[in-house]
Amino acid sequence: MEKKSKYSLLDNISSPYDLRKLNLDQLEQLCAELREDIIDELSCNPGHFAASLGVVELTVALHYIFNTPYDRLVWDVGHQAYVHKILTGRKDIFYTNRKFKGIKPFPSPDESEYDTFTCGHASNSISAALGMSVAARQKGELDRHIVAVIGDGSMSGGLAFEGLNNASSIPNNLLIILNDNDMSIDKSVGGMKQYLVNLTTSQPYNQVRYQAAKVLRKMNILNDDRRNALIRLGNSLKSVAMQQQNIFEGLNIRYFGPIDGHDVKNIARVLRDIKEMEGPKLLHLHTIKGKGFEPAEKHATIWHAPGKFNPITGERIVSDTSGLAPKFQDVFGHTLLELAEKNNKIIGVTPAMPSGCSMNIMMKSMPERAFDVGIAEGHAVTFSGGMAKDGLLPFCNIYSSFIQRAYDNIIHDVAILKLPVVLCLDRAGLVGEDGPTHHGAFDLAFLRPIPNLTISSPMDEKELRRLMYTAQLPDKGPFVIRYPRGRGVCPNWKCELEEITIGTGREIIKGTDLAVITLGPIGNSAQNVIEKLNNEGNHIALYDLRFLKPLDQDLLHQIGQNFKKIITIEDGVIKGGMGTAILEFMADNSYTPSIYRMGIPDEFIEHGSVNELYKVCGLDEDSIHATIVNKLAD
Amino acid sequence: MEKKSKYSLLDNISSPYDLRKLNLDQLEQLCAELREDIIDELSCNPGHFAASLGVVELTVALHYIFNTPYDRLVWDVGHQAYVHKILTGRKDIFYTNRKFKGIKPFPSPDESEYDTFTCGHASNSISAALGMSVAARQKGELDRHIVAVIGDGSMSGGLAFEGLNNASSIPNNLLIILNDNDMSIDKSVGGMKQYLVNLTTSQPYNQVRYQAAKVLRKMNILNDDRRNALIRLGNSLKSVAMQQQNIFEGLNIRYFGPIDGHDVKNIARVLRDIKEMEGPKLLHLHTIKGKGFEPAEKHATIWHAPGKFNPITGERIVSDTSGLAPKFQDVFGHTLLELAEKNNKIIGVTPAMPSGCSMNIMMKSMPERAFDVGIAEGHAVTFSGGMAKDGLLPFCNIYSSFIQRAYDNIIHDVAILKLPVVLCLDRAGLVGEDGPTHHGAFDLAFLRPIPNLTISSPMDEKELRRLMYTAQLPDKGPFVIRYPRGRGVCPNWKCELEEITIGTGREIIKGTDLAVITLGPIGNSAQNVIEKLNNEGNHIALYDLRFLKPLDQDLLHQIGQNFKKIITIEDGVIKGGMGTAILEFMADNSYTPSIYRMGIPDEFIEHGSVNELYKVCGLDEDSIHATIVNKLAD
Repeated sequence: MEKKSKYSLLDNISSPYDLRKLNLDQLEQLCAELREDIIDELSCNPGHFAASLGVVELTVALHYIFNTPYDRLVWDVGHQAYVHKILTGRKDIFYTNRKFKGIKPFPSPDESEYDTFTCGHASNSISAALGMSVAARQKGELDRHIVAVIGDGSMSGGLAFEGLNNASSIPNNLLIILNDNDMSIDKSVGGMKQYLVNLTTSQPYNQVRYQAAKVLRKMNILNDDRRNALIRLGNSLKSVAMQQQNIFEGLNIRYFGPIDGHDVKNIARVLRDIKEMEGPKLLHLHTIKGKGFEPAEKHATIWHAPGKFNPITGERIVSDTSGLAPKFQDVFGHTLLELAEKNNKIIGVTPAMPSGCSMNIMMKSMPERAFDVGIAEGHAVTFSGGMAKDGLLPFCNIYSSFIQRAYDNIIHDVAILKLPVVLCLDRAGLVGEDGPTHHGAFDLAFLRPIPNLTISSPMDEKELRRLMYTAQLPDKGPFVIRYPRGRGVCPNWKCELEEITIGTGREIIKGTDLAVITLGPIGNSAQNVIEKLNNEGNHIALYDLRFLKPLDQDLLHQIGQNFKKIITIEDGVIKGGMGTAILEFMADNSYTPSIYRMGIPDEFIEHGSVNELYKVCGLDEDSIHATIVNKLAD
Repeated sequence: MEKKSKYSLLDNISSPYDLRKLNLDQLEQLCAELREDIIDELSCNPGHFAASLGVVELTVALHYIFNTPYDRLVWDVGHQAYVHKILTGRKDIFYTNRKFKGIKPFPSPDESEYDTFTCGHASNSISAALGMSVAARQKGELDRHIVAVIGDGSMSGGLAFEGLNNASSIPNNLLIILNDNDMSIDKSVGGMKQYLVNLTTSQPYNQVRYQAAKVLRKMNILNDDRRNALIRLGNSLKSVAMQQQNIFEGLNIRYFGPIDGHDVKNIARVLRDIKEMEGPKLLHLHTIKGKGFEPAEKHATIWHAPGKFNPITGERIVSDTSGLAPKFQDVFGHTLLELAEKNNKIIGVTPAMPSGCSMNIMMKSMPERAFDVGIAEGHAVTFSGGMAKDGLLPFCNIYSSFIQRAYDNIIHDVAILKLPVVLCLDRAGLVGEDGPTHHGAFDLAFLRPIPNLTISSPMDEKELRRLMYTAQLPDKGPFVIRYPRGRGVCPNWKCELEEITIGTGREIIKGTDLAVITLGPIGNSAQNVIEKLNNEGNHIALYDLRFLKPLDQDLLHQIGQNFKKIITIEDGVIKGGMGTAILEFMADNSYTPSIYRMGIPDEFIEHGSVNELYKVCGLDEDSIHATIVNKLAD
């Protein structure tokens, strides 16, 4: 708290109302203070760093010009919203950001009236903002402005295009801010990104349009609804547009820019000039991700979420990981390359997560065989389907919570034709600090009903390697491998690559009193607990199911015949997941054991450390221990 | 069979190889014969009519110029592929089109090597074709051409944009044919559609580009890989492009057109001229949906799938429906308007299905309060979320199989914030002739794990009205109502609008021997069967669960306490659906009845009449009867 007294402007800003009392010339200093504050805070309290540094000026200008919260500010992906949080009443508790019970990782209307919508998954801002714009009209609140702030990375998502396409034909005054830093978490890719780069060359034309708007505003023509004046404006702009059309103008969205996203006074002026203009419009800003902190400007991917660091030297504080088990993602990345070197049908596909899923390892060695397709999960899967149809073997890596966006593509473009696409779902289960939008909680439940899929989850890194090896053998069809964020349990993970028979589980511990069935790495927690309990004289069996689909019929018949009590444990939702599959099997085969299912309860789980959240869900070792002891006594 | 001898050209074409033996001047006659054949066939054997008439010339030209099946033709939505089927060896069995065990409704690689991909859901062709293009390169098949044929309606889908965006940055020679008839099933909407209309004015510019390509082809420069020549070409085109840029060119996709989509000779010439050009390219064709059959040209929506008709007069053969129960969709459409007249917060939203779901009734009466957002299911839901967030009450109607495309939007943009969006899922359950891509089989199973949702299904039209009424009352949160295609059971459906307490089921028939639990209209089949069996001295109870979520705890406790035998029946997948929810409830509450679940088995169900398919799935009345009798005897 104490250190904050050093900010002569920021310290006096409790809300955007205070900000709006400043004069234009003070904004630069405020931006400097905000930047310093964020660097300080993030250096000791890790979070998404570079994105927020890039939008300091934009955020200040937006709250300065618009009458938030009456005016609606819709952020597309909340990575970038730290300045917004600090300016909107959360300055003093910002140190709790992303911590359990603390400030939420992304803006959330449950936390602040300045947060207008859920913004964990990219590309939804235009659609949501358009909805708000329709609501304002419908309710007669014609003076309410709606602003969507979307990055160039998010602009590659089909949802953003659908929003643009619809915004152009429904009456609205939406302002879309295109925050163009040429980055997703990794470098942006795709035609739209390249197009935005090229747009820089079209300055003169856009200047004409902007000047016209400015003059009309000064003549006070844009501030009332004299329609004729507006029509004249429209026509004059149209005639300019004929000279050189642009994608957004083609879609009937007025385009302004690009302008320097770090000149706060100019951004404020431009926003003021165009805010009352009727119809949908887009302002294109160039920003630098990590702006104002040199190491982050140079290496924006690393500094997307850098962990702790020294705010003076920029040195990242990396703990010693030698001797630790590897991250699952790295086992994936190295194993994929290893397999691809031997099997020339293997192709890598990821929608904008090459660093996050470690496909960058293959991309570096085999650039022509691994594709980052941009934030476009649906396309990633259908594109993989097309490759598989003509004889390739794509490994498509998508975080579990993002695969929700490709659900139909899995059914329609992969499963119906039984195409050999290997869907690798990283970040499955509870992901921790990113909270409810990012947990990979639903995948097992929503994938299980799809015919023709093989669905697996490895208990450890060696099993991951074996499953990956198995998936790329001939005639395996569509194959899902889901595994969690973070580290595994095998420091020596480089095992031989061997085939696993599809639909076979493993007996990990023999027993007679009670059968515990697990899927995925949570089996290791169960193993620890059961070994302890068995040492105390119990006879508890542990089975690693390994395949949710097809089920290991032999193993389950054996369990059904030999056990009266079963506990199932999974790091997915309890409705419809692995435990439910066991219930179905036992009922369908007339076994009548008493079955207790452990999993993620039927509610959205908040943010916190993974360990804290496992406890919340009753999936930590203590809870597993208590549940088993209870069940034994039952 | 006999009538076919009248076609002097078509009768001799068993495959595209025969077609390619014709000379260019014969193609017009072939098109006339094809058109006549389709009109004849469809007049007595109903199917998708107008779309295929619109692409007669295009289809002939494509198979004439390209070396199918070695070259890949990817259709976007198979409505339009009847000419393709007739030309690719299915002429003599075309009369079985869409019939049970007959030709599949949409192209399918399982049926013909000329069918390259699944094409039931719109907008996937560019992504799939790009995948095939990568596969061809990877395998060294550099002479293989890949062509995607996409309609202007499909172009509004985000997936198509994601495909374009990626096609522009991965090396490929993809040819995208934009079949622009200004229609989805209903009129096309959105900025892209308007943009395509405007493009017509840009002919001169495109002529320059095309002439350049043609000259280069004649100089044989495009037929080899002399890269310098190509670079020169690229540069010259680029300098032209600077004069007037276009959306596709902005995305680095070379644009040609628009050309007349009914001049078969010219289409063939243009295709020949551009086919060897390197890099992704798009040819824009104007076609008329229903071309060559006057009634269809005038009313393309009605003639999208008109049923039987008189091929001479164009009179549709409509059976007398007076006295029949109404279609569910019409009850929805009329009730929505009735509710909207009293509740000014209600807004209608549909992605390109206003006629199909009868939202056109509200759109006609309240054009400012009902939106067709184009083929854009994800946007439809997120847009609804934005409206709901700011106080409106959107009824978003999407066919069950298409809501698969908005799965993440439901979770992320509706459920997390508990927003009052009413998701009305028409065409739930087995839809019949449209087959595996269109069955609404998965919805119950994939929606059930989502927290905060209310999920309901009405047993009849009156219940549909009551559920719709209930959903729009204050504070009901996200609310799903799923109902089937086709007619209900209540000729007098206009009941009073009354609230149903959320999470309550109904006892339809009292009983003691066995409890049958149903969800949705299949309850009527069960009721028929049980009434008959009870008349024969049995005491079977029937419960209409009505809400899959939340479950009726009281009712289920009562059933758990009083019955040893339960049968569940639903028209959704058996893995994870309603029956599974009952299993979970009974296990969680330590009841041990024997439970038999009836539902759609774990496989993709083919096409056929709804009645035939219910039999295939064991969900017809005979099967229900047999199952109950078995269970009673158990």
